[in-house]
Amino acid sequence: MCELLALNFNQPVRCSLSFRGFCHRGERNADGWGIARFDGRACQIFKEPIQAPQSKLATFLRDYESFKSKIFIGHVRLASQGERALENTHPFVRVFRSREVVFAHNGTVSLSIPKPALKFRPVGETDSEHLFCALLTELSQRGIGFSKFKEIENILRYFNHYGSMNLLFSEGEHLYVYRDEGDCNGLCMIERKAPFDRVSLEDEDWEVNLAEEKHPDQRGVVIATRPLTNESWKEFEPGSLSVFKDGQCIYGGHHLPSEK
Amino acid sequence: MCELLALNFNQPVRCSLSFRGFCHRGERNADGWGIARFDGRACQIFKEPIQAPQSKLATFLRDYESFKSKIFIGHVRLASQGERALENTHPFVRVFRSREVVFAHNGTVSLSIPKPALKFRPVGETDSEHLFCALLTELSQRGIGFSKFKEIENILRYFNHYGSMNLLFSEGEHLYVYRDEGDCNGLCMIERKAPFDRVSLEDEDWEVNLAEEKHPDQRGVVIATRPLTNESWKEFEPGSLSVFKDGQCIYGGHHLPSEK
Repeated sequence: MCELLALNFNQPVRCSLSFRGFCHRGERNADGWGIARFDGRACQIFKEPIQAPQSKLATFLRDYESFKSKIFIGHVRLASQGERALENTHPFVRVFRSREVVFAHNGTVSLSIPKPALKFRPVGETDSEHLFCALLTELSQRGIGFSKFKEIENILRYFNHYGSMNLLFSEGEHLYVYRDEGDCNGLCMIERKAPFDRVSLEDEDWEVNLAEEKHPDQRGVVIATRPLTNESWKEFEPGSLSVFKDGQCIYGGHHLPSEK
Repeated sequence: MCELLALNFNQPVRCSLSFRGFCHRGERNADGWGIARFDGRACQIFKEPIQAPQSKLATFLRDYESFKSKIFIGHVRLASQGERALENTHPFVRVFRSREVVFAHNGTVSLSIPKPALKFRPVGETDSEHLFCALLTELSQRGIGFSKFKEIENILRYFNHYGSMNLLFSEGEHLYVYRDEGDCNGLCMIERKAPFDRVSLEDEDWEVNLAEEKHPDQRGVVIATRPLTNESWKEFEPGSLSVFKDGQCIYGGHHLPSEK
């Protein structure tokens, strides 16, 4: 099914707790894992076509004190289209308008746009990278800027007619979060700000006192396919785009009524 | 001055010894380090705008048993154009003809091509990334394939008029090695094939018996700005392109007479 992870904060943070929890999701999504961090206009992507819990690189990053960013995008993969290979492992990246753009997708989309008609071409065989290339082609050909949130949402809703898609992307300044219009896995978020509490992971007997880990002036959101912790995560509204910047929602951010 | 490293073998190998030696070159090239490995049509790039010997990530990779490839391209950076930042750290990558292309450069080039005229745009401020974008633009606009070695050499010699450039690039199948026409640092290679010998690093009291590390059927080349080991490295001929595939030179490969 694949699962997604994203963080956006007002200052560079480590993602140790969230990434620790998220790596467990690789147990059932065993065909690859990846995580991107931004540093200015450029990004670093770490990914491997192996199970996250078995990756020494993933464990290294989880504990690496320099692995900080205001924006992270992560993915664990269960192969549907495209074999288990580096070229089919999310997140994907392209240079667009002199920025690196990172993209990760959960779902299955069969676009009608043939690949030769795309201005940006896929390297691998996934429907996800095809969708990414189609999105960039559309933004490019129609001259739609990164801050035209409504236009971007309309494009994504149009693509959504061709399949299921929860997706995350970023150009290093904004974090774009689109929740599928249908019943595809889900996508939810939790806000993190002072005063911080103790939280425990859903997938491991692991508790952290965030008050000891975070500075009081750190503020942001963690986004995941399913809740990673015992906090009250909020489910995004189906068929909607939410955009985050510096840890705050600046577009959309509509949620389903909480069940708790 | 920056320094370069590349490996090309007939089967995936680790680059522990060469990368260990190469990381020492980061002591005097302290503004960044990076290394790319290919896996099929896709690549992984690890890079940081810090000194290689101080990077825990570089040390991790050196010892990581999954860090294998037939093609590696590495770089340590002493900033000339562009501040110390991730976006200015080599190697650079672009998707071109549905493949990832990786590029690293040593030297200083002032191209006359203005950036808006480029089909591929730089993310950072380095002359190197500008040169990379100019090369891809030229290959794209003139429809020159990756196997048109003579045409590629002619383009590189033309660019060389605008400054100094030792450079390495690869699309995952070939390793392209261009040696500056002038007196820019140098670029040399050593062949590795059975029977393997004991070798020791130039920059560290470290000796390895390659016979224990390598399989007898492994064969390839290591390329570096300056010799990394006590072997008899051969200097590439100035102003020439050499192309390697599966560990063997298939174009160029002209060398200066050995001094030893």
